[in-house]
Amino acid sequence: MLVVMHTHATQDDIDHVLQAIRDMKLTPHPMPGATRTAIGITGNVGAVDPRTLEVLPGVSELIRVTKPFKLASREMRQADTLVKFTNTAIGPGTFTIIAGPCSVENEAMILRTAEFMMENGVRLMRAGAFKPRTSPYSFQGMGLEGLKILDKARQKTGIGIVTELMDTDNADAVEAAADIIQIGTRNMQNFSLLKRVAKARKPVLLKRGMSATLEEWLMAAEYVMAGGNYQVILCERGVRTFSDHSRNTLDLSVIPPAKKLSHLPILVDPSHGTGRRDYVPPMALAALAAGAHGLLLEVHPDPDHAQSDGAQSLDFAGFDRLLESLRKLAEPLERAIV
Amino acid sequence: MLVVMHTHATQDDIDHVLQAIRDMKLTPHPMPGATRTAIGITGNVGAVDPRTLEVLPGVSELIRVTKPFKLASREMRQADTLVKFTNTAIGPGTFTIIAGPCSVENEAMILRTAEFMMENGVRLMRAGAFKPRTSPYSFQGMGLEGLKILDKARQKTGIGIVTELMDTDNADAVEAAADIIQIGTRNMQNFSLLKRVAKARKPVLLKRGMSATLEEWLMAAEYVMAGGNYQVILCERGVRTFSDHSRNTLDLSVIPPAKKLSHLPILVDPSHGTGRRDYVPPMALAALAAGAHGLLLEVHPDPDHAQSDGAQSLDFAGFDRLLESLRKLAEPLERAIV
Amino acid sequence: MLVVMHTHATQDDIDHVLQAIRDMKLTPHPMPGATRTAIGITGNVGAVDPRTLEVLPGVSELIRVTKPFKLASREMRQADTLVKFTNTAIGPGTFTIIAGPCSVENEAMILRTAEFMMENGVRLMRAGAFKPRTSPYSFQGMGLEGLKILDKARQKTGIGIVTELMDTDNADAVEAAADIIQIGTRNMQNFSLLKRVAKARKPVLLKRGMSATLEEWLMAAEYVMAGGNYQVILCERGVRTFSDHSRNTLDLSVIPPAKKLSHLPILVDPSHGTGRRDYVPPMALAALAAGAHGLLLEVHPDPDHAQSDGAQSLDFAGFDRLLESLRKLAEPLERAIV
Amino acid sequence: MLVVMHTHATQDDIDHVLQAIRDMKLTPHPMPGATRTAIGITGNVGAVDPRTLEVLPGVSELIRVTKPFKLASREMRQADTLVKFTNTAIGPGTFTIIAGPCSVENEAMILRTAEFMMENGVRLMRAGAFKPRTSPYSFQGMGLEGLKILDKARQKTGIGIVTELMDTDNADAVEAAADIIQIGTRNMQNFSLLKRVAKARKPVLLKRGMSATLEEWLMAAEYVMAGGNYQVILCERGVRTFSDHSRNTLDLSVIPPAKKLSHLPILVDPSHGTGRRDYVPPMALAALAAGAHGLLLEVHPDPDHAQSDGAQSLDFAGFDRLLESLRKLAEPLERAIV
Repeated sequence: MLVVMHTHATQDDIDHVLQAIRDMKLTPHPMPGATRTAIGITGNVGAVDPRTLEVLPGVSELIRVTKPFKLASREMRQADTLVKFTNTAIGPGTFTIIAGPCSVENEAMILRTAEFMMENGVRLMRAGAFKPRTSPYSFQGMGLEGLKILDKARQKTGIGIVTELMDTDNADAVEAAADIIQIGTRNMQNFSLLKRVAKARKPVLLKRGMSATLEEWLMAAEYVMAGGNYQVILCERGVRTFSDHSRNTLDLSVIPPAKKLSHLPILVDPSHGTGRRDYVPPMALAALAAGAHGLLLEVHPDPDHAQSDGAQSLDFAGFDRLLESLRKLAEPLERAIV
Repeated sequence: MLVVMHTHATQDDIDHVLQAIRDMKLTPHPMPGATRTAIGITGNVGAVDPRTLEVLPGVSELIRVTKPFKLASREMRQADTLVKFTNTAIGPGTFTIIAGPCSVENEAMILRTAEFMMENGVRLMRAGAFKPRTSPYSFQGMGLEGLKILDKARQKTGIGIVTELMDTDNADAVEAAADIIQIGTRNMQNFSLLKRVAKARKPVLLKRGMSATLEEWLMAAEYVMAGGNYQVILCERGVRTFSDHSRNTLDLSVIPPAKKLSHLPILVDPSHGTGRRDYVPPMALAALAAGAHGLLLEVHPDPDHAQSDGAQSLDFAGFDRLLESLRKLAEPLERAIV
Repeated sequence: MLVVMHTHATQDDIDHVLQAIRDMKLTPHPMPGATRTAIGITGNVGAVDPRTLEVLPGVSELIRVTKPFKLASREMRQADTLVKFTNTAIGPGTFTIIAGPCSVENEAMILRTAEFMMENGVRLMRAGAFKPRTSPYSFQGMGLEGLKILDKARQKTGIGIVTELMDTDNADAVEAAADIIQIGTRNMQNFSLLKRVAKARKPVLLKRGMSATLEEWLMAAEYVMAGGNYQVILCERGVRTFSDHSRNTLDLSVIPPAKKLSHLPILVDPSHGTGRRDYVPPMALAALAAGAHGLLLEVHPDPDHAQSDGAQSLDFAGFDRLLESLRKLAEPLERAIV
Repeated sequence: MLVVMHTHATQDDIDHVLQAIRDMKLTPHPMPGATRTAIGITGNVGAVDPRTLEVLPGVSELIRVTKPFKLASREMRQADTLVKFTNTAIGPGTFTIIAGPCSVENEAMILRTAEFMMENGVRLMRAGAFKPRTSPYSFQGMGLEGLKILDKARQKTGIGIVTELMDTDNADAVEAAADIIQIGTRNMQNFSLLKRVAKARKPVLLKRGMSATLEEWLMAAEYVMAGGNYQVILCERGVRTFSDHSRNTLDLSVIPPAKKLSHLPILVDPSHGTGRRDYVPPMALAALAAGAHGLLLEVHPDPDHAQSDGAQSLDFAGFDRLLESLRKLAEPLERAIV
């Protein structure tokens, strides 16, 4: 933490700030300069709210120096985190595909998709039983019935299940049904939900909030880790900007800084990121080249009649073609598509 | 809904789109033009996901025509909604002040604030017992203990209580303690929570999401109204943009379009919007001039030692000065400060 | 400037950074802490590009401490700048109205508007002879012919002229015709143009760039001032965000920080800011309440047949009503409408 | 163009709108629906400003249907544009590298870089003689002297020169010295400059504006093409969003829609896009995978002592490594690195 004083600040102003810092049980380090004084602060900054210093007389600016996340930080743990499953893994070395329909619509389509995925070497299937929809008049998902269908698909095919949890009420049921518990973009800062999945014994896939900075995203991961669940997988899915050329702005540029600041694996969801199935393949290939650890993809047996997100879902043939392109591209990058 | 075809679209492409529209049980209205064909669509568009039309061959663009909100819409109800309380109201004609500390910190400061507010003609006090904090290591609020303190303050002073609900687990307790249930910016699209407060018998103050469009905000209000609770109060509290001159970008420009599209009252929170107490008074006055129905303000008996948000909290003297400025400004605008 | 080292940085890393700072002819101040070292830098930082320090081994972050603007800064000059004209002024104490059509369309409409403005006490008229249009197929303005018409209007009515300069080629002509030279939002960082108007002997109205931070805006003002022209007037006109409820997001919240950081006067353009004439009056009133020094307004004798921006132009009757509202509101704020 | 009426609009309102459309010499097509009327408009919409319809009584919304760009549009020209040079090309099939220092600093470093590039198969070198800098106190480039150095480098090595034009005053000199005239992000809507390069006989590299939508970017290209210069190359270089994890938000997701809407080639500048040299390689590879036609890269013989942008410049060894990675990745993508 650094307090920058105005050029016109008086010695009284400076003394007042020094005292305020000491009142917070922190240590001030005044550094007089040619035109102004700066005051470094050391000590356990996390415990107090130092924004109050900013509005003291003579203070020009308050500058935070250290990042607030600890457990999610690369500084705490230098080695990449690898999240392991019985039949696959997410983390360094692999490029892991999670694919499936937006929603569980019925048993037949889920079974058909699960079988198709397993045949194609995909070991994790996504599908939502609980659906966050912008409109209360849209299809809200099959709920607990949908979870049962997913469970049946896993028992029959051995595929791992990735499904969204929207509230603490259904946490036990989703935790039981899921191999990965998905937290959606709109719930990235639903702190009650984060505290609940921090107690879960399943990995958590944490989608980036629609306008979350990288720091806020890692702080959301920190909530889960601080509660005892270290198996957090980040997932970039497009952010909200002024751009209107696609549904969201898929921010692949977050991958290098996320890998620099954190040891957690990071996936990319080009389906929500772009909102159009014809934009999905180029962005999926780009995610691989940019260094992501895998993809979350919407694939549907019959996208034109999907109950939700059909426009951004690949059909089986399109997914096959994409998988082949990914495999070709993975070779020179020395990555294994799993 | 309007489908715009490419200039190069073939008659087959057009016929395919017409059929797809009919398959959705909607009516297509082809309009051939000089360079391209457009196809109007009528019928109950809400029930289907028409984005699938966008990726059909020959389609250039899909344009949504009608707004998806109904109950929140000015078209459904032309008269302004007035939310009434035993001792005050929010809506047309009034400019209603809700003020108080960020968090319930202890009984003494809550009672002191409540008494001060009642003496100054303020009939609604804000204070959070459950606090959504970016960091898991920050003060998370007093919880149920805090609600009891708020209840005591109401009994002793008669002040109305505005307090935040963060999850369905605490919904009954918050509903009992609150005169207005606040939904925070990070929960604006927590649809499970919206469905719960739709069943509450208390008005809901719905803060705008950090990157919510006006339409998404009104759709969140629609969730509450569609569930049976028509007493929704909107609250602008700053949005997330590229700007870094204040904590958030307080978007006063949303007030005229919100009042044009919806009959719901709209408040402004300049404390969170700006993040600095010295920016609060000018933006509070501007909110009144722009046509808002009131303010949500952070006021603390001793801001420099507040447990949260002290930098953006006014002290009692500062609040007094602001109240006087607001009263002077309200006169030529023919608004009553309550 | 502050260099924050990684917790894992070695002594060699730290020594390397210290040397790099000395190579820049700056003084390093190492501050060892419990978990990491920070290095303060003093000296004439402006002359070098210190971003190179950021990519040295062991460096976690580089934090700039001082603001790069000098002449535009409140620290350099504490008193508010007042820009004076023969018959009016812009700056502290006044709220100055600049009004007129988007474009010079013909002599009659300009004369009619100038007369109407002078009769209503408005001493500055805006009107563009050179028009920056998004499409090459739109009306591009009357050019030099338009400047002649503006000159005639001034001679006949005594009104001051505010008109836009788009390029150095027409700088002499615009400087001769204008009482205030307007630099448009798309040219805020057209540095060649800024250097040219820095040599002009007329005040410069500098619109905020569509996605300019306050610091970038003040740096653009600094270009003009560093070249010798201290008469710079800032003008907020809406920025580019995710919001789609109005043409741009009018950022009134920039007014308090702009007045805190700089001594330059700041106007607001609610016409471009909102893009709709029915949103202009509430935002104009809000600008006054927020502490702006005046308005730039589009007013047209016949907006429905304007060649550009008719949708956001007030007609004479609407402008009269707004002027009356502004006058009423100015009284309790102790501001004089001029 | 589509006018959507309010549900409460009267027949008089509708008739008024129909007449206003006819007054614009356009044809209205009223479409009565169950709850409201929509009015389609056909005719030459480009010539008028239809926003005025939006503020007529009873109008709910005005929806533009057709894209305003013509010459830049894929609908006008279906085949990809290939921009040819004596020794290379930019467009379909190739992935073209343009590399070099941010600024011309002196003759030795330019010659050294040009020779290095030619030895490595790179046929186009970037380097700025005129530099747009945020601060008037930063190095502004060598100007005409810099152009002479670039000319000498071309004569000696045969390399093609890409250099920025900032104003019409220097247009002749830059046009003579450059093989590609670069228009910087801050000048994307400097329409006077666009009109000037529309008359140039050299290709134009048009960087995307910092907050430009894809449509505005293509309209800027349209300015150049409408003036007679069809050799326009787009270049994505990062946009301005709320994100602070890198200098700008490099928007690779614009590549698929840009290629869908336009036939113009599109390059990516990961140096400005990320602002850090360690983020450049992953984003460069991602640009190739996403379908871009090439890269604009900052490479400097001694980045730590560069006069500008050293932090985002690769050194020669780093550039060599990146080139090798690109060559490996290009093979499965069936692209030729040139």
